[in-house]
Amino acid sequence: MYKQLGVIGCGLMGGSFALAMKKAKLVKRVVGYSKSPSTTEAAKRLGVIDVVAESALLAVAGSDVVLLAVPVSATEATLKAIRDLVTPQMLIMDVGSTKCDVSEAARSALGDRLPSFVPAHPIAGKESGGVQHAEATLYQGRQVILTPLPETLPQAVQAATDIWSSLGSQVLKMTPKNHDAAFAAVSHLPHLLAYAYFQSVATQPAGRDFLSLAGPGFRDFTRIAASEPAVWRDILMANKAEVLVQAGRFRQTLDALEALIKADDANALEARIRLISEARAEWQMGAPRLPK
Amino acid sequence: MYKQLGVIGCGLMGGSFALAMKKAKLVKRVVGYSKSPSTTEAAKRLGVIDVVAESALLAVAGSDVVLLAVPVSATEATLKAIRDLVTPQMLIMDVGSTKCDVSEAARSALGDRLPSFVPAHPIAGKESGGVQHAEATLYQGRQVILTPLPETLPQAVQAATDIWSSLGSQVLKMTPKNHDAAFAAVSHLPHLLAYAYFQSVATQPAGRDFLSLAGPGFRDFTRIAASEPAVWRDILMANKAEVLVQAGRFRQTLDALEALIKADDANALEARIRLISEARAEWQMGAPRLPK
Repeated sequence: MYKQLGVIGCGLMGGSFALAMKKAKLVKRVVGYSKSPSTTEAAKRLGVIDVVAESALLAVAGSDVVLLAVPVSATEATLKAIRDLVTPQMLIMDVGSTKCDVSEAARSALGDRLPSFVPAHPIAGKESGGVQHAEATLYQGRQVILTPLPETLPQAVQAATDIWSSLGSQVLKMTPKNHDAAFAAVSHLPHLLAYAYFQSVATQPAGRDFLSLAGPGFRDFTRIAASEPAVWRDILMANKAEVLVQAGRFRQTLDALEALIKADDANALEARIRLISEARAEWQMGAPRLPK
Repeated sequence: MYKQLGVIGCGLMGGSFALAMKKAKLVKRVVGYSKSPSTTEAAKRLGVIDVVAESALLAVAGSDVVLLAVPVSATEATLKAIRDLVTPQMLIMDVGSTKCDVSEAARSALGDRLPSFVPAHPIAGKESGGVQHAEATLYQGRQVILTPLPETLPQAVQAATDIWSSLGSQVLKMTPKNHDAAFAAVSHLPHLLAYAYFQSVATQPAGRDFLSLAGPGFRDFTRIAASEPAVWRDILMANKAEVLVQAGRFRQTLDALEALIKADDANALEARIRLISEARAEWQMGAPRLPK
């Protein structure tokens, strides 16, 4: 059992981690810091954290495990702020959706304290952010990707693996680069597309009337367009190169489908979407990778 | 209470209508026809229909209400096949997702029997088609758009309104043209985008690995990419012009968001996606149109 968890950023992700750690009886005490005092007050009131810290550094003081759950662009400044209290016995993790930029930020901010830091990305979330939506089960049954650096202590990676496994997550390890390429494809691009699509409908002259007619397909397709702007600004900027590569691939497949429609080639269109529809029907979230 | 419902096409939509009509005690007997005998056999076994008809025409014989639930491209041939038994006392409806083509098909196939036909589009569905997924509650709490033609009998429109209202649906009336423009935006384009996106991920070299990492956002964004190929081939082809207009609008908003990313304009990107995110968070399915 850990003595004290320090949570920096007590929103949906940080708050849910605190609740899950408490529920799993993995930690005695949770100290929380957020940029906005109303957030930590709410977190304390909701029983998510036990003690409010007045700064990120004070959330680290006395903690043996620390979770950074801030927008990725705040990673470097936050790690700099806590650096002096980081020890080799401490485990520091983040929950950012991009890992190359977080790794660079950690390298630049932590210097010789880098080995205590295990970059982590839990594949979980909700379209409604904020500590009021935090729940102990958010990470249960979900994948968590760890992207350890060459300097990362093996015992830190082991401790991170043990924690997430105890919370019911399936832990995978990847390089930051492979992580960012994969998530540009399966997460970052769909967010960009959902934002663009929702905007294109909402801003046309009859947009409000159209939106009043939209059904369950629209609801699910656009759910992620309600995602937190500051978080997604950072992700799209941090993983820009990979996101633009994936957007280019998407445009090519869209071009090809549109060309079949324009050419009135119903048979080819049906054959194409039959393959897609069957593959999507077979896909299951978190399914183990099949042998190639 | 109706004496007999004739269902032509006993899949998800037709089967669910039959179950809902029975549950609401709006009909005594359901006769069903499907192109594939295994479908009508399953429909009978599941209690969805009471009697199997050997042809579309025989499903109409003795019916006072008839539902066509076939892919929209089959509408004209089906209406021609039943035309001789259509009477002014009978109510004929379809459930197609496009209404201009269905109206033209009805005009050409039904001739002087046209007034009995009320084009209908219930905004309901599932990604899994087939009579085995039919349920009596599919249309409950959902919008149903009626697009009556100038020739349509007012009492037929009233009867259609009463039926759908009794099934718990909210009935709206629109012209076929306005219907098709609206649904190109809120339904047909998202299907095209979901197909294109899923294909672009699945067909890249690391596609299988990427798919194994995808989470709940991906799951919801791509749910409609599992939709029935024959149905969506017809819809995308039938509403081609409006779909391509909407695709063009979407490309413009995507271009603009990508331009902000390329220009490293994080502030403008955040401002843009904040507006989108707030509008999407406020949107509710089936919400009444606000006064402008």
